[in-house]
Amino acid sequence: MEYQIKPAQGKLGILIPGLGAVATTVIAGVEAIKKGLAQPVGSLTQMGNIRLGKRTENRYPLIKDFVPLAGMEEIVFGGWDVYSDNVYQSAMNAKVLEPGLLEPIKAELEAIKPMKAVFDKSYVKNLDGTNVKEAATKWDLAQALMQDIEQFKKDNNCTRVVIVWCASTEKYTEETAVHQTIEAFEAGLKNNDPNIAPSMIYAYAALKSNVPFANGAPNLTVDIPAIVALSKELNVPIAGKDFKTGQTLMKTIVAPGLAARALGVRGWFSSNILGNRDGLVLDDPENFKTKEVSKLSVLEEILNADMNPELYGELYHKVRINYYPPHGDNKESWDNIDIFGWLGYQMQIKINFLCRDSILAAPIVLDLALFMDLAHRAGMDGIQEWLSFYFKAPQTAPDLKPEHDIFKQLIKLQNTLRHIMGEDLITHLGLDYYQELVEAL
Amino acid sequence: MEYQIKPAQGKLGILIPGLGAVATTVIAGVEAIKKGLAQPVGSLTQMGNIRLGKRTENRYPLIKDFVPLAGMEEIVFGGWDVYSDNVYQSAMNAKVLEPGLLEPIKAELEAIKPMKAVFDKSYVKNLDGTNVKEAATKWDLAQALMQDIEQFKKDNNCTRVVIVWCASTEKYTEETAVHQTIEAFEAGLKNNDPNIAPSMIYAYAALKSNVPFANGAPNLTVDIPAIVALSKELNVPIAGKDFKTGQTLMKTIVAPGLAARALGVRGWFSSNILGNRDGLVLDDPENFKTKEVSKLSVLEEILNADMNPELYGELYHKVRINYYPPHGDNKESWDNIDIFGWLGYQMQIKINFLCRDSILAAPIVLDLALFMDLAHRAGMDGIQEWLSFYFKAPQTAPDLKPEHDIFKQLIKLQNTLRHIMGEDLITHLGLDYYQELVEAL
Amino acid sequence: MEYQIKPAQGKLGILIPGLGAVATTVIAGVEAIKKGLAQPVGSLTQMGNIRLGKRTENRYPLIKDFVPLAGMEEIVFGGWDVYSDNVYQSAMNAKVLEPGLLEPIKAELEAIKPMKAVFDKSYVKNLDGTNVKEAATKWDLAQALMQDIEQFKKDNNCTRVVIVWCASTEKYTEETAVHQTIEAFEAGLKNNDPNIAPSMIYAYAALKSNVPFANGAPNLTVDIPAIVALSKELNVPIAGKDFKTGQTLMKTIVAPGLAARALGVRGWFSSNILGNRDGLVLDDPENFKTKEVSKLSVLEEILNADMNPELYGELYHKVRINYYPPHGDNKESWDNIDIFGWLGYQMQIKINFLCRDSILAAPIVLDLALFMDLAHRAGMDGIQEWLSFYFKAPQTAPDLKPEHDIFKQLIKLQNTLRHIMGEDLITHLGLDYYQELVEAL
Amino acid sequence: MEYQIKPAQGKLGILIPGLGAVATTVIAGVEAIKKGLAQPVGSLTQMGNIRLGKRTENRYPLIKDFVPLAGMEEIVFGGWDVYSDNVYQSAMNAKVLEPGLLEPIKAELEAIKPMKAVFDKSYVKNLDGTNVKEAATKWDLAQALMQDIEQFKKDNNCTRVVIVWCASTEKYTEETAVHQTIEAFEAGLKNNDPNIAPSMIYAYAALKSNVPFANGAPNLTVDIPAIVALSKELNVPIAGKDFKTGQTLMKTIVAPGLAARALGVRGWFSSNILGNRDGLVLDDPENFKTKEVSKLSVLEEILNADMNPELYGELYHKVRINYYPPHGDNKESWDNIDIFGWLGYQMQIKINFLCRDSILAAPIVLDLALFMDLAHRAGMDGIQEWLSFYFKAPQTAPDLKPEHDIFKQLIKLQNTLRHIMGEDLITHLGLDYYQELVEAL
Repeated sequence: MEYQIKPAQGKLGILIPGLGAVATTVIAGVEAIKKGLAQPVGSLTQMGNIRLGKRTENRYPLIKDFVPLAGMEEIVFGGWDVYSDNVYQSAMNAKVLEPGLLEPIKAELEAIKPMKAVFDKSYVKNLDGTNVKEAATKWDLAQALMQDIEQFKKDNNCTRVVIVWCASTEKYTEETAVHQTIEAFEAGLKNNDPNIAPSMIYAYAALKSNVPFANGAPNLTVDIPAIVALSKELNVPIAGKDFKTGQTLMKTIVAPGLAARALGVRGWFSSNILGNRDGLVLDDPENFKTKEVSKLSVLEEILNADMNPELYGELYHKVRINYYPPHGDNKESWDNIDIFGWLGYQMQIKINFLCRDSILAAPIVLDLALFMDLAHRAGMDGIQEWLSFYFKAPQTAPDLKPEHDIFKQLIKLQNTLRHIMGEDLITHLGLDYYQELVEAL
Repeated sequence: MEYQIKPAQGKLGILIPGLGAVATTVIAGVEAIKKGLAQPVGSLTQMGNIRLGKRTENRYPLIKDFVPLAGMEEIVFGGWDVYSDNVYQSAMNAKVLEPGLLEPIKAELEAIKPMKAVFDKSYVKNLDGTNVKEAATKWDLAQALMQDIEQFKKDNNCTRVVIVWCASTEKYTEETAVHQTIEAFEAGLKNNDPNIAPSMIYAYAALKSNVPFANGAPNLTVDIPAIVALSKELNVPIAGKDFKTGQTLMKTIVAPGLAARALGVRGWFSSNILGNRDGLVLDDPENFKTKEVSKLSVLEEILNADMNPELYGELYHKVRINYYPPHGDNKESWDNIDIFGWLGYQMQIKINFLCRDSILAAPIVLDLALFMDLAHRAGMDGIQEWLSFYFKAPQTAPDLKPEHDIFKQLIKLQNTLRHIMGEDLITHLGLDYYQELVEAL
Repeated sequence: MEYQIKPAQGKLGILIPGLGAVATTVIAGVEAIKKGLAQPVGSLTQMGNIRLGKRTENRYPLIKDFVPLAGMEEIVFGGWDVYSDNVYQSAMNAKVLEPGLLEPIKAELEAIKPMKAVFDKSYVKNLDGTNVKEAATKWDLAQALMQDIEQFKKDNNCTRVVIVWCASTEKYTEETAVHQTIEAFEAGLKNNDPNIAPSMIYAYAALKSNVPFANGAPNLTVDIPAIVALSKELNVPIAGKDFKTGQTLMKTIVAPGLAARALGVRGWFSSNILGNRDGLVLDDPENFKTKEVSKLSVLEEILNADMNPELYGELYHKVRINYYPPHGDNKESWDNIDIFGWLGYQMQIKINFLCRDSILAAPIVLDLALFMDLAHRAGMDGIQEWLSFYFKAPQTAPDLKPEHDIFKQLIKLQNTLRHIMGEDLITHLGLDYYQELVEAL
Repeated sequence: MEYQIKPAQGKLGILIPGLGAVATTVIAGVEAIKKGLAQPVGSLTQMGNIRLGKRTENRYPLIKDFVPLAGMEEIVFGGWDVYSDNVYQSAMNAKVLEPGLLEPIKAELEAIKPMKAVFDKSYVKNLDGTNVKEAATKWDLAQALMQDIEQFKKDNNCTRVVIVWCASTEKYTEETAVHQTIEAFEAGLKNNDPNIAPSMIYAYAALKSNVPFANGAPNLTVDIPAIVALSKELNVPIAGKDFKTGQTLMKTIVAPGLAARALGVRGWFSSNILGNRDGLVLDDPENFKTKEVSKLSVLEEILNADMNPELYGELYHKVRINYYPPHGDNKESWDNIDIFGWLGYQMQIKINFLCRDSILAAPIVLDLALFMDLAHRAGMDGIQEWLSFYFKAPQTAPDLKPEHDIFKQLIKLQNTLRHIMGEDLITHLGLDYYQELVEAL
């Protein structure tokens, strides 16, 4: 299969449901970067290289020079929020970025005012939005969102739009009949089926507007058959779910390393302290439970106990999140890993990560927006598993286990880029270097 | 190219120059494992799986069930040492394994007595061996080693032998004329060229005896043109150098993770405390310098500053090794990593590894012995770069940069195994799963 | 007041309710020490020195050489437990001490069989004892305990006995009317008042048998007016409560240091992981609550927010205990302390304590037994506040705040010893050294 | 003896040799505090309380309300430096305080310009001062300093002056004949004896000007018989040496806690990383040696191996300082402490202190200045051992061992204040509370 990628002409609109800490950090960052005030560190699309061809060719272009991505200067931001604060006010409240950095881009940030959100308090108990759409049915809400998208596109002279969900985690739900087919889903929209979450209405509106949708929270959202089918039918890509940052990022780096060496793991205790609103919400055992399920699954897949019962069959994995106001947005994690090696001798690894949640999430939003736009222009539709790299719980085809190992995720991403650009895939085999050596001798 | 791998029939002799802490830990371990007293944890050949075919095929055999390796019960150990202690005595001195574990295999360990070593005090100032070969020339010493190998093979009824160097690090040296060709090297052996290190004499004797040679220390040894040429000429594989354990293992796990996410690194401070003889030797600034060079290079390659000056151009990397007797063989490392993300915001990672040096090294010795024997039977000669996975400073073809990222090293190893067994290489592309999905819908 | 201390003649019986991990560790330890197999490390009475007189006198005797304590060889152990395992079996179950250490004292440990315990399931939900006394009233149970004590004394030819409570923490209770006077308490024993806990029956029986009682758990036990009055009336000392070990020990060391320097503290996050039965019990939020109250109070007193609102008024203190089986009895704590200094600049201290719970508790049991016996012979009755040093929640006179600073507690203990032995109290003033200096010049 | 303390009337001048990071942090801090912009956290004189009388009296005044100290608003700063930068410029260079804090006090800081320093390159190899006094003899330099002091006093209308040494550490030296008597010393000044260090010339000039002198560096300075004798003769107090901050502060907090409980210590490994000029200087092995001696002595005294050979006889103590530019002035320490308890069972404590050097030192300078002025007005002369609390290597009378335990140092300080104010010394005995209890019952 050969890919005909349409060029990235004109403005790209990035629309974000949820203009809180993460969204304002990415928006302010992009504006600061446009002005040359800062660097897009942590963004693979902007600062990452990719090896092409054989090692001896020494071809390592920047990814943005290799694949035809939208340029930073072509990006326009917009979004929805249940509060009416503009992005400058919201960024000041979030206290992630220093006022000194926000000052020179104040005008740009103040100009971004949230559109009225689709909101349902039964899905997020602890929020009380005021900047909220009113309509008789969920179908009507979807139409309103489609009009918002159309209007934004026109107002900002965009040729394309993508949506990245950065709003709060919705309550835990499972698939029901209404999620199974496009028809059932559309009927549900019209008769206000309670199992259709706000995030699903956004996803539906996006796809119907020809807009790719990526999901940064652990909600189902696009991970239901109806939306998958719609994305295939309309040829619009989808991806999810839950941005991979902080402790889980670290875990999907270290665990593959231990597994690579066939080292056993008896216990992994993960503690987090954080003092932002996220921490307060997750201090509640019920809310934490949803997050916990997602966080625990990571090790289960990487350290496959079924396949290696002697190494991982006894693994005791525990994750705790502790609300601790003195740290604010500066999440800190402490991991104790009990491993064993040759003949069962025990060792310990302790990792203390003094991290910043929104700083790690922001470049993920940018990368996903740019890659989803690329996929769209390349004619790739349905689930974009090659973007697993960015997610805590990657969405995959129904029969596939998600891949959590960040290094396999990276190869998948890079080989996908090589593939769509017609370059050789890299297998790291490299035996040929030594066969040539024979001849040379 | 198709591989005709000879079967692993008969006994495999593993000969080890240097029967100290690492060697006795691997020997005692293998004997304990043969008796069902312990598990070969940390050994990829014994406990690691390999995925074959597509994910949906669910084929994940153990490596030892996939490639025709020598069985544990077919292994016979021997070796050389400058001290005449048998392996039981030496293991007791090393204090790595508990006496309770050594007791039931005492007879087997006592039976292994070191052959007289080739030793040159000018290469290891702080040792004074007594169990040492005397001969007029280095050529004669090589002949004596070849006789040792022959005798050992006969006495133990071995069909094949491999050698893994586990002796002390020799002093720092660089290539000279004598190392450039087989002819020059053989002349040097005969006229006692001082630039030929003892480890090189072992390597020469090994190859001439049709015995693969792997080097666990940072000495040059097989990493010189003469030995590389000889290995090609005689069709015997070689590999090196410096077993990758402890802090460096951790570093080649974590650094690729940071680079994967395009996170910047401003500083990496690595401190080690250890109280064994290795620690005492490395407490000396001169000896440490050799080790330091090897340890520092790891980050330089993974965090390529030339390619990413904004992310890694300012990296300050410092490694300290501190002799600290209270910890004995239980090496402990503490790393402080200063990273920065989106817009340059700073974060810190601190890793405290309470590790055990010989426990991490022992399974590497076993794996290298078995894989070198496999390579030999498969007709692979010269440098075995696919075994980079096990080395701190992997030996490569002259024009190639070594690959330090442990995950790329693992893929290289696994794809090599798939390749020689005629299985498809794995690229993690996986777009086909989604194309099938289209048809299925 | 001058003290007439009766000599420590004859055997001293130490009776312990609760022959679990802590009790068996102290008993096995004392037996091993008697045989010269180990040292009583951590015991102030056995290994601690005390300065006497002026610094220039250089008098630093061992405490055991300064005050007339019972000798180790005069100690005889006994106790009660709801299980009938002898001390050897119980020590093997506890897995605190290595089998190799228990072997040479097996006979001594097997000889100690628990007497039937006074037990009430409503006070410890998760235990199901079988070795339990049956009687119509709590009064009868008290009489039975008094007979046990008498019998033990006779059987073992003891001149004195002391009791140290090492059993499980009872459920949280508060003082009621039955605890207010001796009369009310004795009536309650007779009519089975449910507010009289098993530990109180032990305490009552002890005092009536002229036996000092120290309480190692956070239960009220001797911390009620009725028992205090009885101890004064009968001239028998009491002390409590909750042995100070592990994280709290560390906290009462570090917090006074920060307060000494007037450094501010904004947050103190304390996490514990442990895998013994104690950990399992405390993983339950309800049981943990009792412990939490006791653990939190420590900082409140040392970092007095009322007195220093600018430094400690915002202190956020959180303690978490996490059940983590891989660690067994090896409790591990991790503390993050957010401090601030000059002009409010912030700093952090992180303390990782890889500790052993029973190993830290055992010498406390020994010291308390010996000091309580000393106090008894010295005619000291009522609450022994000078033993605060050993307790997490020291029992004091009704109007006094407990002193948690371990260094003030140590001075109190040492000056009490000096006081009863007629030595000068030490104030560390020391100006006289410099006045003498003047004359000398 | 009764103390007649002269009132703290009029301005107090604080003169500082060395207007670098520490000095500018204290000066800027005091100016900010005067304006109500910040708090003097870490200063015992300003924010510390002292208990008076019995616990039941509840008397805990602030120290500054208890003893007649100079008020903050009466303080005037001045100093000498080898560079001519004013205090604002020097503070900006030091990068300890944020520009935002320095802005509102810029005028005050710019007004403080360093007087020309007495400097001798042979004592500090790595500095090249330009703002330096020229004179034929050291005697003349002393006279010049005395004129500086006199002029400063007049210009600033001060009634009293104190000097606190904050300049760089001078090279290691030992006492010689010239340091033994006042006469020899004065002769040495006149004939330029090379053994008289610049800091000694400052000290001599101070005492001759009736100005107390405290030494914040490890140089001998006032710790020589000649200066001690002069301080007694002229009735001017002296104190030293080496401000106690960071890792050593932590060590003198934790070690007494371990010793209190008679816990053994087998090893203490202390590593530091810092990136300021101090770190660069101490990265040199020769300069570090001087510091090392001082740092090691702390544990030797607290964990007295002579008195407790079983607990501390095997203690291996190692201190490393590593230059690590990424951290700047934010010194970070990592300690691994190997302890053992009951029966020799081993445990570990790991302390990671993310500290700020100058922030911890600044309040010490303020406290010493105020307490030295108090001592002077109280007629206390010679060595002020009661200020040991602030020093890494406290200066004492010739026959006395210094006291390093920070808690004994604090009691000494507090009891000295109580003593000179006619209050009862506190012994923490407290038995009387319980005797009263008897009567009350």
